[in-house]
Amino acid sequence: MTIYRAPVRDIEFVLNEVIGFDKLTNLPRFSDATPDLVRAILEEGAKLAENELHPLNFSGDKEGCVRDDDGNVTPPKGFKEAYKTYSENGWNALSGPVEYGGQGLPGTMAMAFNEMTMAANMAFSMYPGLSHAAAAAIEAHGDDRQKNLFLPKMFSGEWTGTMNLTEPHCGTDLGLLRTKAEPQADGTYKITGTKIFISAGEHDMSENIIHLVLARLPDAPEGVKGISLFIVPKFAVGEDGAVGDRNAVKCGSIEEKMGIHANSTCVMNYDGAVGELIGEPHKGLRAMFTMMNEARIGVAVQGLGQSEVAYQNAAAYANDRLQGRALTGPQEADKPADPLIVHPDVRRMLMEQRAFNEGARALIYQATLWADLSIHHPDEAEREHADDMMALLTPVLKGYFTDKGFENAVSAQQIFGGHGFIQEHGMEQFVRDARISMIYEGANGVQALDLVGRKLALKGGQVFMAYVAKLRESIEAAKATDGLADMANAQAVAVDRFEEGFKWFMENALNDFNHAGAGSVDFMHLMGVVALGDMWLQMAIVSAAKKGETFYDNKLAIAAYFFARVTPETGARLAKLQTGAETVMALPADQF
Amino acid sequence: MTIYRAPVRDIEFVLNEVIGFDKLTNLPRFSDATPDLVRAILEEGAKLAENELHPLNFSGDKEGCVRDDDGNVTPPKGFKEAYKTYSENGWNALSGPVEYGGQGLPGTMAMAFNEMTMAANMAFSMYPGLSHAAAAAIEAHGDDRQKNLFLPKMFSGEWTGTMNLTEPHCGTDLGLLRTKAEPQADGTYKITGTKIFISAGEHDMSENIIHLVLARLPDAPEGVKGISLFIVPKFAVGEDGAVGDRNAVKCGSIEEKMGIHANSTCVMNYDGAVGELIGEPHKGLRAMFTMMNEARIGVAVQGLGQSEVAYQNAAAYANDRLQGRALTGPQEADKPADPLIVHPDVRRMLMEQRAFNEGARALIYQATLWADLSIHHPDEAEREHADDMMALLTPVLKGYFTDKGFENAVSAQQIFGGHGFIQEHGMEQFVRDARISMIYEGANGVQALDLVGRKLALKGGQVFMAYVAKLRESIEAAKATDGLADMANAQAVAVDRFEEGFKWFMENALNDFNHAGAGSVDFMHLMGVVALGDMWLQMAIVSAAKKGETFYDNKLAIAAYFFARVTPETGARLAKLQTGAETVMALPADQF
Repeated sequence: MTIYRAPVRDIEFVLNEVIGFDKLTNLPRFSDATPDLVRAILEEGAKLAENELHPLNFSGDKEGCVRDDDGNVTPPKGFKEAYKTYSENGWNALSGPVEYGGQGLPGTMAMAFNEMTMAANMAFSMYPGLSHAAAAAIEAHGDDRQKNLFLPKMFSGEWTGTMNLTEPHCGTDLGLLRTKAEPQADGTYKITGTKIFISAGEHDMSENIIHLVLARLPDAPEGVKGISLFIVPKFAVGEDGAVGDRNAVKCGSIEEKMGIHANSTCVMNYDGAVGELIGEPHKGLRAMFTMMNEARIGVAVQGLGQSEVAYQNAAAYANDRLQGRALTGPQEADKPADPLIVHPDVRRMLMEQRAFNEGARALIYQATLWADLSIHHPDEAEREHADDMMALLTPVLKGYFTDKGFENAVSAQQIFGGHGFIQEHGMEQFVRDARISMIYEGANGVQALDLVGRKLALKGGQVFMAYVAKLRESIEAAKATDGLADMANAQAVAVDRFEEGFKWFMENALNDFNHAGAGSVDFMHLMGVVALGDMWLQMAIVSAAKKGETFYDNKLAIAAYFFARVTPETGARLAKLQTGAETVMALPADQF
Repeated sequence: MTIYRAPVRDIEFVLNEVIGFDKLTNLPRFSDATPDLVRAILEEGAKLAENELHPLNFSGDKEGCVRDDDGNVTPPKGFKEAYKTYSENGWNALSGPVEYGGQGLPGTMAMAFNEMTMAANMAFSMYPGLSHAAAAAIEAHGDDRQKNLFLPKMFSGEWTGTMNLTEPHCGTDLGLLRTKAEPQADGTYKITGTKIFISAGEHDMSENIIHLVLARLPDAPEGVKGISLFIVPKFAVGEDGAVGDRNAVKCGSIEEKMGIHANSTCVMNYDGAVGELIGEPHKGLRAMFTMMNEARIGVAVQGLGQSEVAYQNAAAYANDRLQGRALTGPQEADKPADPLIVHPDVRRMLMEQRAFNEGARALIYQATLWADLSIHHPDEAEREHADDMMALLTPVLKGYFTDKGFENAVSAQQIFGGHGFIQEHGMEQFVRDARISMIYEGANGVQALDLVGRKLALKGGQVFMAYVAKLRESIEAAKATDGLADMANAQAVAVDRFEEGFKWFMENALNDFNHAGAGSVDFMHLMGVVALGDMWLQMAIVSAAKKGETFYDNKLAIAAYFFARVTPETGARLAKLQTGAETVMALPADQF
């Protein structure tokens, strides 16, 4: 069986020593979030992740979800009970607003909890994850009646929620969508159409499921400007909140997928289902987009989570499995062979995973802190800065984290040799589960295009320049710290390349957008490495002051690995993107 | 459903216009292998792969293999019939020696056939693949009686074969193996032990299964010097070749794996099974090693095959699926959206896959030609040169091809977006199937170590230097060809880096072997890129002379892509390996 230990110490390190979580908790709004409370939440979250959710990860994958002939879906054994525990302990409410029954804690706190649950059991955590996204949509775009009617039950966990965007012929390009909403005399709408890939679309874990559905009104303009958002509950909801009749929405089938088998990814058939409009007519896509940053960060942390849990299992196996001898001579001569971990290439894979995990953890908590500050900081300039940084980093977090998360799950599996290919060891499940994060919530190519096409151009490039200035501050601080000169220099080279890549786009892509598209993924990865490098410099600066303590010595060792072994990738990324679209687009489409 | 079209034109291009297949077919031994025969074989092989094997790929994965309580295994529907067709058409005999019923054709010819079948249906092709490996072991190490008794039935396909190396506690480190062989009064041995991960271990497709099994004799020294090789047939074989009683070897269970579900990967229990020694006592491992190059090339072509079939499906989907608009404005304004292929990042992924596929195809046929020439060329110096080149390239072919094959299957899947994650489209199967090739027949980390630890040192580095000289010849030839200067220059930079990497090892790794281990995978990939670059230069030179014809124009376009977009990776690989083992090994083992 696989293991998972929530990295509580590492999370506290990031929150308290690296990103300055107290910038947020010092605000009056979050005065309840004392260090003691934060620790208690982390510890309780860790227990839930380790003891309740992780033990269901393997069995959930094996068992999958079962749909009966009436379209009812039963998740794997233990999921309903685990969800009950999850709800009763208030985890659905963590960062929800107090006025609707939430606990009003910072989003950064919820991120810490999500990291643990997404690592422990990704398929399970998607049920409350989607519910959280649906609640956020209602919170952002619903009227007071809708908020009062739906949110308290969703924060209590009695009801869950889903997001219904994709249709068979349209994924990324939602302008093509066909699901219809016909206005009724009583002000409701009848929704008709087919949605696919609907995560947590149907199950028996909650009393009701609140579907958020994109559809077209009869008078809707074509394309993305004619899409509206609707609330369509599985069971009708009375004005008193009482659950009534079954609505005309059903799970038509469960998608047979590569992974996340324990999540009921459904084809949802809307057959004149009764719904109500949320937000303005034809502004549904905009409503979805306001939540996009949050949703993408929610997927990014899946990449981190799967990489972390895969790493932990690979590290344990590498210390345990005896095979071959060290290149420098036997290390454990009394045993028939040395443990795998003596082999430099095994060590390299583990270091690569860990350098990502710890750097990525710091970066995603930083980003979530920005998200919190962008809403709650009293100073407008601070709010704006935080919002800018968050917007710039989001596609990188989603794209880079999930690419690397998958890559690391694969290399962790590799450490198991043939045993990694066998289901029993659980490593291949991490690979299969991690794979989806690169695809949904905007495939990573779409993230890269968002980065180079939109985010680099924010405020005429000033957001990018502000980020570069921040990167250079860390470099200066590292240069001023004993023992970090090499790291600072390596990062300085990488940041130069990052700026060069930006300049190349400015000089070339404005004339031919294909240059931006052709170099977008390379630039996203270049930025990912630079952004993690920045967090590693910050962590190294903190750790240099505490040299001699194992925890901090380890951080310095991993930081050194990062700059030696990860940072050089920036050179190849820059060189590739600077060759532009010419060779990429040279072959005629009909020659493929 | 997935598609597969055997790339016959491309294979002929490589054989006839690039690698000089006539060096071999001009030899008297292969006078039968006329261009007409070669074409006929390719065309018949293509038909088998496209019409018989590929249609069973998806259903075979879904259905898997079934074991009954007596340990009998039934492969998926259609496999037995397809194998019958395969055998009756003589494919098992293709490159077998004429004296034992083989057709005596070059191994390069068998490679062409294998490429097609491994792409069309990897799990199926492993049954005859393992059989071929077992026959090769008997051919190389059996005595005349054994060869006459077993080989004709194996080449006819009536009997199949397997290789039994791995045990639960030992994979890479075969010195740990425990299976025992007790000598009997009649000169036979009783074999007892458990073997795992045995591909094609048990099935009903052939009349008998000839297991080749590594085991220890009672007086065996410890470690790898005490391992002997045995022939253990599923059914006893009389001296007249008649099949007799069931032997005491059974499939204990079918391994539940990530992929290649249609291949019966078995736990094999030997319970005093009767076997006979093949080759000398205690020299079993050496016997296996003599076949290792061939077996590794056999796995390398799986990487190419899965990358090719995944590419073909992704290219078709990219031309078919309408989603979004080109960055430069609508391309098909009369349709609701443009096809995916207008997007530069989609094009980049397809070009990346194709640049690998076509370069890798050229390289692996070159390597197989060397293997043939190393045996059959009349000139000893030529034989030796071919053998050296083959030995040097083998770990790169296995390691680089299967890493890239998997990576390409993943990126082909990515082009399908959410649909790529759904089983129905077949893309996720390519990913799951391709994954094993990175692991078995020596995990890719072991390949990398073989490369830097053994192969670079062959003849005191002279083999490496001879290869570099060859690379530089191609560069000079390209420089002398109109329009190829940029490509030649890019390759020259890469070859410089390749030499620098070699020098770095010479200067550093001899004092500390961990430096070799820590940089081994980076060096293997650096060499992979350089080796493919060499083939691309050769292909570009041929194509430059035929400019204006679409086929050759395409080659030039893909070559240009390769040097612009793939070759730059060499810089990062070199930079990483030059940082040595220090940061890789810095963290104490107990801190993982």
